[in-house]
Amino acid sequence: MNTTPKTPSLEDIREAHQRIQPFIHKTPILTSSAIDAMAGCQIFFKCENFQKVGAFKARGAANAVMKLSPEQLAKGVATHSSGNHAAALARAATIAGIKSYIVMPSNAPEIKKKAVRSYGGEIIECEPNLIARETTLNAVVEKTGATFIPPYDAMDVIEGQATCALEMWEESIAFDTIMAPVGGGGLLAGTALTTHYISPDTKIIAGEPEGADDAFRSFQAKKLIPMTVPKTIADGLLTSLGKINFDIILEYVDDILTVNDEEIIAAMRLVYERMKIIIEPSCAVPLAALLKNKERFAGQKVGIILSGGNVDLAKLPFK
Amino acid sequence: MNTTPKTPSLEDIREAHQRIQPFIHKTPILTSSAIDAMAGCQIFFKCENFQKVGAFKARGAANAVMKLSPEQLAKGVATHSSGNHAAALARAATIAGIKSYIVMPSNAPEIKKKAVRSYGGEIIECEPNLIARETTLNAVVEKTGATFIPPYDAMDVIEGQATCALEMWEESIAFDTIMAPVGGGGLLAGTALTTHYISPDTKIIAGEPEGADDAFRSFQAKKLIPMTVPKTIADGLLTSLGKINFDIILEYVDDILTVNDEEIIAAMRLVYERMKIIIEPSCAVPLAALLKNKERFAGQKVGIILSGGNVDLAKLPFK
Repeated sequence: MNTTPKTPSLEDIREAHQRIQPFIHKTPILTSSAIDAMAGCQIFFKCENFQKVGAFKARGAANAVMKLSPEQLAKGVATHSSGNHAAALARAATIAGIKSYIVMPSNAPEIKKKAVRSYGGEIIECEPNLIARETTLNAVVEKTGATFIPPYDAMDVIEGQATCALEMWEESIAFDTIMAPVGGGGLLAGTALTTHYISPDTKIIAGEPEGADDAFRSFQAKKLIPMTVPKTIADGLLTSLGKINFDIILEYVDDILTVNDEEIIAAMRLVYERMKIIIEPSCAVPLAALLKNKERFAGQKVGIILSGGNVDLAKLPFK
Repeated sequence: MNTTPKTPSLEDIREAHQRIQPFIHKTPILTSSAIDAMAGCQIFFKCENFQKVGAFKARGAANAVMKLSPEQLAKGVATHSSGNHAAALARAATIAGIKSYIVMPSNAPEIKKKAVRSYGGEIIECEPNLIARETTLNAVVEKTGATFIPPYDAMDVIEGQATCALEMWEESIAFDTIMAPVGGGGLLAGTALTTHYISPDTKIIAGEPEGADDAFRSFQAKKLIPMTVPKTIADGLLTSLGKINFDIILEYVDDILTVNDEEIIAAMRLVYERMKIIIEPSCAVPLAALLKNKERFAGQKVGIILSGGNVDLAKLPFK
């Protein structure tokens, strides 16, 4: 794909924001005095659960598609994903008036397939394993000439996700810390870049599930350690950290904190009960990490990106 | 209690808003292009689910308490309620630095009792029937001298609930219709009054569950018909319409539409899935009524008050 060859500058991120602005929501920042009282700091929740397609992924996918050349656009885009990136790419392609080919495992939930189709994506099914996924994607790209838009491991995608923090900084809040979840690392890398340019003293801290802690372990070891058998309720964070994402994270992220599923569910419940908004389990990970390490954030202004709100309402983890 | 002897004027409602403003949220208005496309009109959701105590009831309770004389304040306030009004009154009393006595049936859910206590209310349990409730309340009032603040059948409460529509009209949206749910009629009466003063041509339409349709039947018959055995998932709307509420509704409300529980759950699901916010079943009733009668609202700008967001997360009606 037509990746930005270098790490995006602040100017690049601002241009990306201009580029995608007509196609995304400027999501609100919400606060909760009850949660602040429990946390002992002031939290500003950036609500990407209210974003188009219900997740921040709308930003990166739109940016990557809108940057394609006319020749590339003519042949469409392709990706493999059964999550929010699939829906986001299908939507961005439809807005651009081009085709999108989405490789999904045959056992993906019908509701996810329906979402992709409703945004205009064409689904190509494959066996539910990594090799089949890549082989199928390669075959699709070869046959159609479509440009592969990866879910996170691409500069144009990172540049798009970086616009979320840009909007946060436009609110004139002097954040001491900004937190985001980490899965593939697109949102975290983008958030760290934007914040590095605008407020280099602000700490960037990621939350990660214990059951999929490759970013934590890679960060500690300072080398990329892929995830083998991830297991967590935070289904948006099962993917392994991307290579270029890791390079940016190693340079600009201050720490990665891990939490277990019980802590994730408790934080999720708090947001549902106190803020009356719907978030995915992945989304609750940074808040869970903050509540587990309150002393580190005492008295601070903390920005937390609520990354998405796509959950199966019939299977919420509340008893 | 120190009721306003007459129906509140626009000036009264504005003063009430000034009076309670320090103690309530100015809740946001949210929109959803997906729901608009399905409904064939433009809907503006006033999010009282984000209100303090999670419901519009914070308005009326605060207004009634703040209007008491120093002599009345010294003796505290009392009510019977196992719902949002109980929490709202306990909170308003604590803010005013006075005592609140909340009569609740002994079988009320522990979570509701806990909420009332967390806001500083003193719970007095009674047998779970209407007579025990009134006898117990009377005994509390006699013993303590506390002022009874009813959940809806009082002008000061209606005046407080009327501030919700006042905030909607401050947004410079030319509503063709405003919709609210109807249970006791406090919110509906207040909404109708404010709108009558500010925009008399705007239609006021209520939504009511078929299983608790005393307002609908009373409105048709033009006389108050109490509800005997209500049965609906919309647990906030089980109460019978109040007398003074009915008088205002008969004069200023244009229509009452009923919906069944299946339609309520479908509308509720739509709000959860498309708007990513949490609402009570009662809250979904006006949207359900709109979707059932689309032709009446075609092309309009419709304001819908989402009245509250207090649900038991472990018992959501989604399959």
